Amino acid sequence: MRTADRMQGVHRSYIREILKVTARPEVISFAGGLPHPDSFPADKVAQAAAHVFAEDGAAALQYSTTEGYEPLRNWIAERYAKQGLAARPDDILITTGSQQALDMVGRALCNRGEPMVIERPGYLGAIQCFSMYGVDFKPVDLLETGVDTGQLDAVLQQTGARFFYAVPNFQNPSGISYDAPTRKAVAEIAGRHGCIVIEDNPYGELRFMGEDLPPVRSYMTTPSILLGSFSKMVAPGMRLGWVYAPDGLMDSLVRAKQACDLHTATLTQRILYRYLADNDVDAHIASIRERYKTHRDLMVAAIREHFPQEVRATDPQGGMFLWCTLPQGLSAEQVFERAIQRNVAFVPGRPFYVDGTDNTFRLNFSNASPEKIEEGIARLGACLRECLHQAQSAA
Amino acid sequence: MRTADRMQGVHRSYIREILKVTARPEVISFAGGLPHPDSFPADKVAQAAAHVFAEDGAAALQYSTTEGYEPLRNWIAERYAKQGLAARPDDILITTGSQQALDMVGRALCNRGEPMVIERPGYLGAIQCFSMYGVDFKPVDLLETGVDTGQLDAVLQQTGARFFYAVPNFQNPSGISYDAPTRKAVAEIAGRHGCIVIEDNPYGELRFMGEDLPPVRSYMTTPSILLGSFSKMVAPGMRLGWVYAPDGLMDSLVRAKQACDLHTATLTQRILYRYLADNDVDAHIASIRERYKTHRDLMVAAIREHFPQEVRATDPQGGMFLWCTLPQGLSAEQVFERAIQRNVAFVPGRPFYVDGTDNTFRLNFSNASPEKIEEGIARLGACLRECLHQAQSAA
Repeated sequence: MRTADRMQGVHRSYIREILKVTARPEVISFAGGLPHPDSFPADKVAQAAAHVFAEDGAAALQYSTTEGYEPLRNWIAERYAKQGLAARPDDILITTGSQQALDMVGRALCNRGEPMVIERPGYLGAIQCFSMYGVDFKPVDLLETGVDTGQLDAVLQQTGARFFYAVPNFQNPSGISYDAPTRKAVAEIAGRHGCIVIEDNPYGELRFMGEDLPPVRSYMTTPSILLGSFSKMVAPGMRLGWVYAPDGLMDSLVRAKQACDLHTATLTQRILYRYLADNDVDAHIASIRERYKTHRDLMVAAIREHFPQEVRATDPQGGMFLWCTLPQGLSAEQVFERAIQRNVAFVPGRPFYVDGTDNTFRLNFSNASPEKIEEGIARLGACLRECLHQAQSAA
Repeated sequence: MRTADRMQGVHRSYIREILKVTARPEVISFAGGLPHPDSFPADKVAQAAAHVFAEDGAAALQYSTTEGYEPLRNWIAERYAKQGLAARPDDILITTGSQQALDMVGRALCNRGEPMVIERPGYLGAIQCFSMYGVDFKPVDLLETGVDTGQLDAVLQQTGARFFYAVPNFQNPSGISYDAPTRKAVAEIAGRHGCIVIEDNPYGELRFMGEDLPPVRSYMTTPSILLGSFSKMVAPGMRLGWVYAPDGLMDSLVRAKQACDLHTATLTQRILYRYLADNDVDAHIASIRERYKTHRDLMVAAIREHFPQEVRATDPQGGMFLWCTLPQGLSAEQVFERAIQRNVAFVPGRPFYVDGTDNTFRLNFSNASPEKIEEGIARLGACLRECLHQAQSAA
């Protein structure tokens, strides 16, 4: 059957295809991007659900407004206020995870052929989503301190792009965070070019070390958009995220959302709000941070022990991912083939680029157990050595 | 802020704007399209939720597959099998309500400028959704027996439209159902023109009188698409619906859904499935039918008593809506202005047309109590008599 032109070039997520390969129980997988299930406050969410059914009854199952559940929007606005951002509940639209927040922004704002600056490497879900709207990606390199601001300035100058999609905290896939000077510089550059920063922040709460840094938005005097998610802070299976947008944009976002699915589930919004209102969320987040820091420290140490020194790896201060770069001449997909034979998996970096770069890969450290992290990195180290040896012999 | 071109002409739902006017407690509203909250099996859904948390724990809060929860897809496929349709779970994609099912179909299949046949009047949510994809609507009149098949044939011949969006059971807004000969004829005509019928069926389970009729799809030998929803069968606030699509299309739909929101909430899918598996759903549906039949009978009787005979009203055999046609020279929006002064509300028909027709209106009978139905229709009858009198005096 003939499909719409916009579907050309939108492939099934490479990662989801890899996850099928790695479903075998003997495979140690660093491929997925799943939070650790033990980090979900399942009992407390269950209590919140019981509470909602007892108190709200049928109202929890009825249609509700497109904008989202008012107390939940209020909770989000208050949390922004603590970060010094003057958000009002009316500036918040609840979405079906932050993936739908991307979709609403693309739908309401982006024309086909629209130039959009993205990070290189960039978040795969954003590449997939904005591709559907025919966006013309303009990648700008990520350095260890964040996006290359010189390149950003030049690309905005050349292309006149109205949008820059950025993940300044513990980016997926790289784990890189923008340092404070980079945040300030991005705000200044974007403002000067009249470029709207679409600032996505699914991992911001998961900082293990160093100090929290203010969002790019807090330095901006021109309009920008923030996207948020409860997927890593509470749990992803409720699919709850949001857009925080300036005044002039909310009406279009609401119309886009209404045409798309009327509204996000009343039930999950009320359950989540009840959970947030009745529990110490910051204590919960602190426990996730502690768990993931242990995982991260183990993975970083195992990499130092087992990886050949020709392979570079990032040293993330938070989030769920670590990013590796292979020396010239090695392909991550070749390493993947070998790794999967040894029952260890990761995601080759190619889908995170719009230009086919193939010498990087992503490791997830949130989902595997500490034992599996040590064993899996050791296996992967052996594969890398073999591949390197083979490449050097061939050269 | 400049929005995308596709947002031109997509307005906020007229109905949602009307609902704001009718929020005052003294207003008797037949405007919304809400199921009656007493029809929701809230206690049993609460039990199902408790069950899910106890048995599935963290898995109910984790990411899950784009296609949807396998047991839920299996339940839907088995229900189709009882209707004689050979559905497999793999033919079903779970969506965030059937509104998102529309969106996925539009996204995966429709190019800008794509001609699409719709019913006249047509479902507002479909008009909004497909408008975003730049569809060129080709309306075909609804008769009391269903779509005008002669007109359908001619329009398909003239336009070569690849799609016909139809709501053959108790359509929103008209309450009209296709009779058996019309269903057969639509299948034959669509098949002959190579046109895909997008058959939406949110109200099919709500038949109060007459016999259930098979879907148009059951007469078709060429590909077609069925959309379904749990909103009226169980409750809308979980936002669960589906697309049942032929083999060649599912892959595109899954890619579209993945880019849009990854997947529909794991939690609501599991709760709904648990509810469906543990309860006698048909007995529940029978109780909704009984309730709505009482409402419908009361409204039909009150209309006969209070409306001037110049106003025609449909006599629906199911669903939630009744459709009124005013005599020449009366505008539904004028009647609405007067009605709202008397604290009674309905939806003027204009947004259900793509050509601005203004002499019809929709009455919802599912949501108001029996007492309010009698009182509201009496008030509305008085308004109609006044408007008619005024129009006749002016003529």
